[in-house]
Amino acid sequence: MVRVWRAWVFTLGTEVVSGRVVNTNAAYLGRRLTLLGFNVLGVVSLIDDVELISEFISYVLSSKPDLLVTTGGLGPTYDDVTLEALAKALRVGLRLNEEALRSIKEKYDVLKLPLTPERIKMAYMPEGSEVIPNDVGTAPGCMVRREETLIISLPGVPRELESMWESYVEPKLRELGVRRVFAERSFKVSGVPESSAAKVVKEVLRKYENVYIKTHPKGHEISAPILEIYVQVFNDDLSAAEETASKVLEELKKSLVSIGGVIT
Amino acid sequence: MVRVWRAWVFTLGTEVVSGRVVNTNAAYLGRRLTLLGFNVLGVVSLIDDVELISEFISYVLSSKPDLLVTTGGLGPTYDDVTLEALAKALRVGLRLNEEALRSIKEKYDVLKLPLTPERIKMAYMPEGSEVIPNDVGTAPGCMVRREETLIISLPGVPRELESMWESYVEPKLRELGVRRVFAERSFKVSGVPESSAAKVVKEVLRKYENVYIKTHPKGHEISAPILEIYVQVFNDDLSAAEETASKVLEELKKSLVSIGGVIT
Repeated sequence: MVRVWRAWVFTLGTEVVSGRVVNTNAAYLGRRLTLLGFNVLGVVSLIDDVELISEFISYVLSSKPDLLVTTGGLGPTYDDVTLEALAKALRVGLRLNEEALRSIKEKYDVLKLPLTPERIKMAYMPEGSEVIPNDVGTAPGCMVRREETLIISLPGVPRELESMWESYVEPKLRELGVRRVFAERSFKVSGVPESSAAKVVKEVLRKYENVYIKTHPKGHEISAPILEIYVQVFNDDLSAAEETASKVLEELKKSLVSIGGVIT
Repeated sequence: MVRVWRAWVFTLGTEVVSGRVVNTNAAYLGRRLTLLGFNVLGVVSLIDDVELISEFISYVLSSKPDLLVTTGGLGPTYDDVTLEALAKALRVGLRLNEEALRSIKEKYDVLKLPLTPERIKMAYMPEGSEVIPNDVGTAPGCMVRREETLIISLPGVPRELESMWESYVEPKLRELGVRRVFAERSFKVSGVPESSAAKVVKEVLRKYENVYIKTHPKGHEISAPILEIYVQVFNDDLSAAEETASKVLEELKKSLVSIGGVIT
């Protein structure tokens, strides 16, 4: 039996929710977590509201996931409220973290800029947090555990998030023992409406265990159907997963061709 | 006092959560709803799991928002489960909608394709639903009310979603009486770290009511700070909102220039 590592992502910020930016952080984290071996169950974007964020984090924590990652809301402005909301959800205090403060001071020292309240604010973290260094920007990230769940908070600026992810977060997550347990493949077929492929997919799924198949309509269902078909095979033994994936792909292609499909 | 219309968006699909696609539907709906006058509080993406989707919809409905929009999961495949989950959340049955069935039949009739179970599936909707026609694809959308909340379910294929939004949903929402009650502006400033702008913003906000200001760091906080500054002013009287927005912009620019900022 494959152990399932359940993860949630919170991409926080009014600009995300109101559509002023496209949420590329969600795609980045969803993909990285999936490739690492996590089963990402959901992504939640919320406006910069302490109560709302705190309530939603509590709600998701009550399902005891293995991992919860937040992005955004770590900066120096009045509406950067993620860690305040997180502390509230965890029912712990927000404490000045000396290590975080030192790293912030060092950065502003370069330009001889003083430690103002806005800059010091970025060093306040939920009690029990470990600092995640930010080598690209100034706001440090933080990591805190609550029972079964590891909670990781990162900035919303994509190049800061991505650098911290690759340098610090991924190595840490690998230490937990999570690892990829699936093979994935995809191909395109034209000439078959999704509603016809649906039956083919169902039949293939009946024959295999631990296989996930998803059809993505790219053309027009009636006049010019094009489908991208994505196959994922779960198996602790990755080479067995690859082998099954090949078989599933062959079967899908054969059945789709038999009903008029052209594999592209 | 301005009436606040609260909205939530659910963008459903495993491919969104696992980062295989970038969630442009969320940005589209967030922006369209905001411009219409809604205060979008959150966007939730979930994997194609009936229980999970149903639970989350129930949770959000318990806060009695004015509007909940879902995208995705209306198609003919086994993992298109949005309407089943919605019916479950609303504690009503899933019923064959004759109007929806007729529109689906007409479309497949063009190619003399029969009404298979997979195609008929797309006509099952929560009891009490009204059909939203899909002029671009085949899966119809649906609209259902639950106490204070209007719930609208649309397909996940962006060009279907967008066409239905513009032709049917927006006109319907305008009928409710929602209207835009804000002016918005933005500008860029270089040479001021976000942590310095934070103080300026706080001071301006202290002087004005119903003003929202957000700073977006685009450069590097210490070595090359560039900020995009976004200002939103809420007022039932739109020309008054525009006037205040101009004043706020002038004040922000003046203060930022006085601490070394260059407006670009």
